[in-house]
Amino acid sequence: MIGVVTNTAFEMFDRFSPIFAAEAPEITILRPEDVERPEEVSFVFTFRPADDAFAPYPNLQAVFSAGAGTDAIDACPSLPEGVPVYRVEDADQALQMAGYAAFHVHWHHRHMAQYVAQQRDAVWERVLTGLSPTHKRVGVLGFGHMGRAIAKGLMALGYPVSAYARSQPNPPEPGVRHFTDGQMDAFLAESDMLVNVLPLTEQTKGLIDAAFLRKLPEGAALIHMGRGGQVDEAQLLEVLDAGHLCGASLDVFDTEPLPAESPLWGHPKVLITPHVASIPEATFVVRGIRDRMRALVPA
Amino acid sequence: MIGVVTNTAFEMFDRFSPIFAAEAPEITILRPEDVERPEEVSFVFTFRPADDAFAPYPNLQAVFSAGAGTDAIDACPSLPEGVPVYRVEDADQALQMAGYAAFHVHWHHRHMAQYVAQQRDAVWERVLTGLSPTHKRVGVLGFGHMGRAIAKGLMALGYPVSAYARSQPNPPEPGVRHFTDGQMDAFLAESDMLVNVLPLTEQTKGLIDAAFLRKLPEGAALIHMGRGGQVDEAQLLEVLDAGHLCGASLDVFDTEPLPAESPLWGHPKVLITPHVASIPEATFVVRGIRDRMRALVPA
Repeated sequence: MIGVVTNTAFEMFDRFSPIFAAEAPEITILRPEDVERPEEVSFVFTFRPADDAFAPYPNLQAVFSAGAGTDAIDACPSLPEGVPVYRVEDADQALQMAGYAAFHVHWHHRHMAQYVAQQRDAVWERVLTGLSPTHKRVGVLGFGHMGRAIAKGLMALGYPVSAYARSQPNPPEPGVRHFTDGQMDAFLAESDMLVNVLPLTEQTKGLIDAAFLRKLPEGAALIHMGRGGQVDEAQLLEVLDAGHLCGASLDVFDTEPLPAESPLWGHPKVLITPHVASIPEATFVVRGIRDRMRALVPA
Repeated sequence: MIGVVTNTAFEMFDRFSPIFAAEAPEITILRPEDVERPEEVSFVFTFRPADDAFAPYPNLQAVFSAGAGTDAIDACPSLPEGVPVYRVEDADQALQMAGYAAFHVHWHHRHMAQYVAQQRDAVWERVLTGLSPTHKRVGVLGFGHMGRAIAKGLMALGYPVSAYARSQPNPPEPGVRHFTDGQMDAFLAESDMLVNVLPLTEQTKGLIDAAFLRKLPEGAALIHMGRGGQVDEAQLLEVLDAGHLCGASLDVFDTEPLPAESPLWGHPKVLITPHVASIPEATFVVRGIRDRMRALVPA
């Protein structure tokens, strides 16, 4: 079986080919330029495909995303109709997201930007009140398997957690206050720490603008682990500068890498990570592809 | 009933007296200089008492610590024999410790010092492998109610957790590999992230020296949330500079506030917080004292 690995956003072939050799020796992995018989290609493995990435292959059985999102694949003009697109959905990646969320909730709740700055000047100044997790209500925006892992992790650390999803999650997560369609404003009004893990869709594009952020309580923080395009970056800076938010952690951006001239880099209330909230482990990803292809194309 | 509030380390009276008024109106709280009839003082509430702090009061029923440790009280020359010393042992404080541990495990595991430094220079450089929590084995050194909360929190984030305690905890914590007396070396050998929450005793004083730290795996990190006096600060720096450890988070120090001339402040692998891993909420502390005094001195 032949699979093509192609991506515009980061190097995938060298990273994944040894894993395929170890985990799925029956699969031959090729770069597009090395394909001799395109009709024999069974799947494409990509994250951000070029516009014509799928065009050469008339017999695709499946397309695999290297990440939890498939938005760039779904938007690709050469994606053939009727071919299933699979995203990575592994429990390990969800736990990486939970660790990221716990870190950034603590960063904003427990004054870590202040302490990091103080260390540079050898200053010992303590904030002695308000350290209980009960003081910060965490709102998880988006409640798939990642949102659920984040909620569980933060509850284990004592934070009160609510969650918003378009429809009631099945099953609901014990201990989580669930909000659904029509209850967004009520959800936001009690989210001192808003953790965004929504997928990028027509509904979520540009969703997080100034009006949206002003529905959070005074002094809230935004932890943005969703997708670039969901947060209006200029309006976020306005709301931060107006003092309504105490801070923001941003992992994804409209343009990645974030351009050096972006005012986000130097903003004292913003903590930036370069799209590393979670990176699926190559071994788990390859095993998922192997198992799916074995089911689609029995030997 | 009269209680005296006295402390050399930080201001306690102004912070706690309104809480006593609200939660325990039957208790009169005084500063030592305002006590007119010392024989009527039933308890002392302190954290770091002066050497003669207990001397004036012949009828003490109890001494209460404002923190989880009682080492400074136990070492006080005027502490009367036979009077029980109570430490704060509340679940909320344990959860604060768990959040602190989760933050610092993530800091070292997920390259946050690098990302914070990169942000200053508007640099986008990503570490794309090794992000799974399964790659970092967390060892919790000390397993009272705080160690247990830390273990639970980190397991909820996917980290493999082991724990060392002098004797087998009762009950053992499901999912945790427990090590006891005589198994310290084996415990250290598989602790990529060592989280210290031991109390300060004769046995733990100076315990964490170069020889101890070299028993950790190459590239391990130390997260020190125990007590000053347990870590040999000079030897820790040696082991960091030798490259055996990748980093250290330090919340407690031999001398607090940490002197401005300490080389710890400027060390690139060290993250310093000013003894804020947990601060008991005043309300919970006062309720604990009130309930204990009601039991000791029934109305």
